[in-house]
Amino acid sequence: MIEEKIVNGINVTKLYSTIDTIKERPGLAKFQFRATNKWVNSMHNRAKVKDFYGAGKEDDTRTEPYVFDADEPQVLLGEDQGANPVEYVLVALSACLTTSLVAHAAVKGIQLDEVESRLEGDLDVRGFLGISNSVRRGYEKIRVTFKIKSNATREQLLELIDVAQKRSPVFDITHNTTPITVTLET
Amino acid sequence: MIEEKIVNGINVTKLYSTIDTIKERPGLAKFQFRATNKWVNSMHNRAKVKDFYGAGKEDDTRTEPYVFDADEPQVLLGEDQGANPVEYVLVALSACLTTSLVAHAAVKGIQLDEVESRLEGDLDVRGFLGISNSVRRGYEKIRVTFKIKSNATREQLLELIDVAQKRSPVFDITHNTTPITVTLET
Repeated sequence: MIEEKIVNGINVTKLYSTIDTIKERPGLAKFQFRATNKWVNSMHNRAKVKDFYGAGKEDDTRTEPYVFDADEPQVLLGEDQGANPVEYVLVALSACLTTSLVAHAAVKGIQLDEVESRLEGDLDVRGFLGISNSVRRGYEKIRVTFKIKSNATREQLLELIDVAQKRSPVFDITHNTTPITVTLET
Repeated sequence: MIEEKIVNGINVTKLYSTIDTIKERPGLAKFQFRATNKWVNSMHNRAKVKDFYGAGKEDDTRTEPYVFDADEPQVLLGEDQGANPVEYVLVALSACLTTSLVAHAAVKGIQLDEVESRLEGDLDVRGFLGISNSVRRGYEKIRVTFKIKSNATREQLLELIDVAQKRSPVFDITHNTTPITVTLET
């Protein structure tokens, strides 16, 4: 029986054994995540997330989908039946940076007590509305501020903030370019 | 009393009057969307979306926050208490492309009966795990397939697919680069 090392609730022993397995069989690292979406009415639509492929097979551990309603607030002509699409981007980014930070702290043996963050994204809707072509459609800038409670030094925490950005998939997707193809089913 | 034009549930008359107002006062187009996040344990964290700034003031129409749990599935060492961060990216992208498509159809007077989409994102977890530096952290590729029921011609629908990509803020954020700053609160 191997004694397992758990830091920040993360099983570091299992994480290292997963890394070793993937090093031997890189094909296991290939994942495909999925979502479906169905328009409801006006600005309101509903996305579902359930199945995915990873670790060499279709995952079947989820019995029910996660369901997400998206809409626009009234000031953007919606009925506010859910967060809007660009707010979901901030949700994704906040979650990914947090997970990356906590996981890498665990690997380094740094115990964290509290991790909170606040995100702000500046968006000029003239882009989306087609009023100006010199205004970009998406966020002009996103600011993330972390507040961490831990016995670690400020230097260690700053290093975690740095590693979180370097490792986070959503930071990469948002900060860098990602190829997307959009097609119409015949 | 002006007769209002409603297409796909969207008040096109109000949309045009909003565009006219913004053309006169571009400062009203400046929005700031926000999210907060709090780590729960291990890979599990919780994001909240509520207040935002737009149309020249702090919006106060939302009384309760939208709450989103994020976690990783078991195969990625989580406890699957929510969709994972990269799945939230697909939610955001699906919602934004759908809204952009439906809104621009409304402007063009094209009535839509059903709009569904399916998204797939390919991700090699060797990036996140730090096993390989030549593998990117985020999605290598995202594919979106739309299925639309409408009396419009295929040519019109293909044009909508094209305009949706050009106008969608989340498509822009994901497909292009977005500046992000991450700081640690003192």
